[in-house]
Amino acid sequence: MKFKNDLILRVARGEKAERTPVWLMRQAGRILPEYRAIREKLSGFKELATTPSLAAEVTLQPVDILNVDAAIIFSDILVVPEAMGLTYEMPEAKGPWFPKKINNLSDVNSLRVLEAELELEYVYEAIKITKKELAGRVPLIGFAGAPWTIFAYMVEGHGSKTFSNAKKMLYSDPTLSHLLLEKITTVTIAYLKKQIASGADLVQIFDSWAGILSPEQYNEFSLPYISKICDAITEVPTTIFAKGAFFARKQLGLLNCETIGLDWNMDIEESRALIGNKKTLQGNLDPCVLYTSFSEIKKHTQNMLNKFGNHQHIANLGHGVYPDTEKDKVRCFVDAVKEHQFALVV
Amino acid sequence: MKFKNDLILRVARGEKAERTPVWLMRQAGRILPEYRAIREKLSGFKELATTPSLAAEVTLQPVDILNVDAAIIFSDILVVPEAMGLTYEMPEAKGPWFPKKINNLSDVNSLRVLEAELELEYVYEAIKITKKELAGRVPLIGFAGAPWTIFAYMVEGHGSKTFSNAKKMLYSDPTLSHLLLEKITTVTIAYLKKQIASGADLVQIFDSWAGILSPEQYNEFSLPYISKICDAITEVPTTIFAKGAFFARKQLGLLNCETIGLDWNMDIEESRALIGNKKTLQGNLDPCVLYTSFSEIKKHTQNMLNKFGNHQHIANLGHGVYPDTEKDKVRCFVDAVKEHQFALVV
Repeated sequence: MKFKNDLILRVARGEKAERTPVWLMRQAGRILPEYRAIREKLSGFKELATTPSLAAEVTLQPVDILNVDAAIIFSDILVVPEAMGLTYEMPEAKGPWFPKKINNLSDVNSLRVLEAELELEYVYEAIKITKKELAGRVPLIGFAGAPWTIFAYMVEGHGSKTFSNAKKMLYSDPTLSHLLLEKITTVTIAYLKKQIASGADLVQIFDSWAGILSPEQYNEFSLPYISKICDAITEVPTTIFAKGAFFARKQLGLLNCETIGLDWNMDIEESRALIGNKKTLQGNLDPCVLYTSFSEIKKHTQNMLNKFGNHQHIANLGHGVYPDTEKDKVRCFVDAVKEHQFALVV
Repeated sequence: MKFKNDLILRVARGEKAERTPVWLMRQAGRILPEYRAIREKLSGFKELATTPSLAAEVTLQPVDILNVDAAIIFSDILVVPEAMGLTYEMPEAKGPWFPKKINNLSDVNSLRVLEAELELEYVYEAIKITKKELAGRVPLIGFAGAPWTIFAYMVEGHGSKTFSNAKKMLYSDPTLSHLLLEKITTVTIAYLKKQIASGADLVQIFDSWAGILSPEQYNEFSLPYISKICDAITEVPTTIFAKGAFFARKQLGLLNCETIGLDWNMDIEESRALIGNKKTLQGNLDPCVLYTSFSEIKKHTQNMLNKFGNHQHIANLGHGVYPDTEKDKVRCFVDAVKEHQFALVV
């Protein structure tokens, strides 16, 4: 496949590029009126996510409307626990909710593993349609949740500030916890490989709840499984975004992956020093900056770009774009990245 | 005042002590059935907080029941915005809610500053009663919110995952933001001084929402105001607990205060290296550990104590104790600290 714009792939691989590529986490979503128009006609999030033609359509929207340098397949990290046997619900304006959750060994034993990837045919189909429609304009990103984050939802059963039930299981029953994490990892690798076989050009792992673990727990229950995934994915560049895992930046830098995502709390120079020069960094503008004026957005974006420097950087926010952000403010961010001129000394 | 147990004060001042002192953030609260018995008879949290004899009673409970080495006055950081003119409500099982909030200069101008401390007589009275009842058994901790955290509630009007309105004001109108932060700081200093004059033996500043700011915003909008408070409080030792401000540990170590609180995400050795040897450290067991078995609690507590070493450490959790923690598990934590024998090499 010949790309018209493969900036993000070249930068992920550490190659020099003519400018910094840019995309946004949650770019396919509520920030776009065009998305809301499609969403309104449907029964809910899940109908959209499980209908390949519609998922492909909203995946393409930000490429057309915001001119970002990558598409990311419209889906959710929770399709994995669902494929393993725990259906989730996504009630409007609330977080996800699992009627059945994991409490004990028999729950873990009842999960589907080898057959799970087959349940996700609708994602692969959406990727295939999207790739066809993209016709090489920009690369397509596939994704999955990190095993710890998926574990957190499977045990807690819903979002939580503390995920105290999930953390309790880590402390109280490490053996059971590792068994469950192992199963999630197996499914995740198979799932990502199928996404890649269907056309994903880069994959990103979201460890959304990294930041609620202690450094010791993160080392024991999250990093080893992310590492397994990184080792298994050799086909395309891999990005790890571990929200809040400031304490693990050194170890993240040692993973067998291409790119590390930073959240907006992470100082850019310090992160580069901790992670080392072998990785591309992604991020990390505070999403709240997009609530301010066009001139402020431009100023903060330029400031961020100068700190990262003109190579090994994929511009993004430090978190998913907030759904009530104005579309024109998002465009302002994208344009500011594209128009930026680095000083010659950088 | 002669104390029977002044361990926490000696350790805060960097003196050697016979063992590590221990208390818990939120120790006066729902974890104690004795607290719930009092609370049930009242109209709500505010009646308890504003009735000095009752506030004193629940402040003393953990000293009697849990044998902690310090009492902390039962109150809330939100009494400060209320004294300044923004009444708050505390609906059951929801977070705090401000019917009126700060949007613009005229809102900021309408706030009480010099008269605000006078509104908080009920806190000083509760401190006086508590001190009398304690009769020197253990020291009493006073507290206030850090100016940024109080600002966040005043502008947002309620708790929030992102505090995006508050952060938007920082980005969009730094002048107005500094004016408001200045006013909060003035009131906070006067309030803490009155707490000390009423009998508080140590004061703690809670910067609960430190962790949602970028390092740049934290340097501009939070640290300078905490620094002013530290410089102003010369009467008693001061503790700063900036939840999530991992990126500011070096600067926190330079404050004119005695103790820095760590949350459970912060690696102990790394934090000591960043903060330096001049401060006492407080914390930082993961509150979720108290959901596990007695033997796990003991093991994790001992492990934490060994990492901090046998001086310049006040044992605590890395966050407030979760309200559904069993009382006996909390006692187990307290006892594990008190019984710990450090290896001679430490």
